[in-house]
Amino acid sequence: MNNIAYYNGKTSPIDEMMIPMNDRVVYFGDGVYEVAYVKNHKPFALYDHLDRFYNSCRMMSIDFYMNREELTDLVQSLIDQIDTDAECILYWQCSRGTAPRKHYFPNPPVKPNLLAYVKPLAIPPMKNRIKLITVEDQRFFFCNIKTLNLIPNVFASQKAEEAGCDEAIFHRGDMVTECSHGNISIIKNGALKTAPLNNLILAGTVRKHLLEFCNANGIPVDETPFKVAEMVGADEVIVTSTTTMMRAAYEIDGQPVGGKLPDLVERIQNGYVERIRKELNL
Amino acid sequence: MNNIAYYNGKTSPIDEMMIPMNDRVVYFGDGVYEVAYVKNHKPFALYDHLDRFYNSCRMMSIDFYMNREELTDLVQSLIDQIDTDAECILYWQCSRGTAPRKHYFPNPPVKPNLLAYVKPLAIPPMKNRIKLITVEDQRFFFCNIKTLNLIPNVFASQKAEEAGCDEAIFHRGDMVTECSHGNISIIKNGALKTAPLNNLILAGTVRKHLLEFCNANGIPVDETPFKVAEMVGADEVIVTSTTTMMRAAYEIDGQPVGGKLPDLVERIQNGYVERIRKELNL
Repeated sequence: MNNIAYYNGKTSPIDEMMIPMNDRVVYFGDGVYEVAYVKNHKPFALYDHLDRFYNSCRMMSIDFYMNREELTDLVQSLIDQIDTDAECILYWQCSRGTAPRKHYFPNPPVKPNLLAYVKPLAIPPMKNRIKLITVEDQRFFFCNIKTLNLIPNVFASQKAEEAGCDEAIFHRGDMVTECSHGNISIIKNGALKTAPLNNLILAGTVRKHLLEFCNANGIPVDETPFKVAEMVGADEVIVTSTTTMMRAAYEIDGQPVGGKLPDLVERIQNGYVERIRKELNL
Repeated sequence: MNNIAYYNGKTSPIDEMMIPMNDRVVYFGDGVYEVAYVKNHKPFALYDHLDRFYNSCRMMSIDFYMNREELTDLVQSLIDQIDTDAECILYWQCSRGTAPRKHYFPNPPVKPNLLAYVKPLAIPPMKNRIKLITVEDQRFFFCNIKTLNLIPNVFASQKAEEAGCDEAIFHRGDMVTECSHGNISIIKNGALKTAPLNNLILAGTVRKHLLEFCNANGIPVDETPFKVAEMVGADEVIVTSTTTMMRAAYEIDGQPVGGKLPDLVERIQNGYVERIRKELNL
């Protein structure tokens, strides 16, 4: 089939899947999620996504009932039912469970709900540089958990869309945190600088690969917060996310940025593509 | 019937109602809600809840398709189907609509989804004083919108539950904002003090009635933020919310608080009960 949805053991086309109104995601957004890249019926960096998923569950005190092997088998069984070898997105989320609406956790605990889908994904070519806008980061202080409380990300993303831009960059006061659905790094003086892992940003899987590539290739890495002005003056600005991989900026808030080290950007991007190729035997 | 759920024109018992997985509430919590008190088949202060609901929709750029009269008729038709005159809760929420998952708003726009339910509600007696804990307020800066992004409220409420308390009080640093599902005010030197309306708190309907009562009864009102220490030293601490009305505290974080002006607290509570009686012809 072209796409498939899963909810607590049932499967259907995405458009037809229904969930109970009393799933706590409906009243509170009380759950966490993951998004992985799929090609040739194989998920990329699933180990990283599983690490983060179980960590998100732990931080949310959600006692998810499948182990890594069971969850891996399940998502693979969904991927296997898609009738294309082309690029796909694997999405899954887990909520605290289904119970009458009450803020505190259901007591006795209920079984968490697992929702997933797989569908084709068109990834924009990485060589195309992107336009960004900046937006004040007004999110909560649980940004290290990949939760379903995403209204500020929706707002920021909509602002970017209305401005004809590809992404919105969050900043708390002067300091850049991350983007509305990805991390952001800069290259200056030959080094890569990116915000450190704390409760202000999500530990992106592509961010991790980017840092690993830099470490393996003699590019110094500096995990220190940087200011908006520093970003605007950087040699390159790179946005990383699962569904757009690694893209470099050419404009922020209407001003030209980056573009000073196109060969290095290409080397970094090629390194990521190579990593995908190797892992998925493409 | 004992309870009723509504979703986009369909009705069923709450436990049986299903909604599409692609409702944006499922991926983003992308919607707003209201909770109203019902007795004798009549909703109390529905005008206030409607004001706030349409204001929430406006701030979320959700173009809700029913006007006040239509929405009033709809919720009344649900209330009418409940087979008790006793106290009930009327809940409704509106999400941005149903569309394949993408952060920015669906384009072209889709019709918002309306979900509602009515069910019996047991309100704890107001004369029972309550125990509270304090929790650092780590929420986003859109607390003036009654959104479905409620994970920090869930966390705080769970902490209160685990501590055997009735509510959690949020504070940003030293300053008290509100509770996990209600506003908070203090009485000191004969005046009522409560945090001002800005993006740090929700404009509670019971808070509004409390201020109106004070203004009508010669009790000075000071809408200024107050500190945790000030609260602990106050003559009375009062928590207001639709489902618990107006309750005074006797303990915060294990320390005795308030209890210095029980007659005034009773007068304020009686004023609220009287207001409900009058409006609902009880």
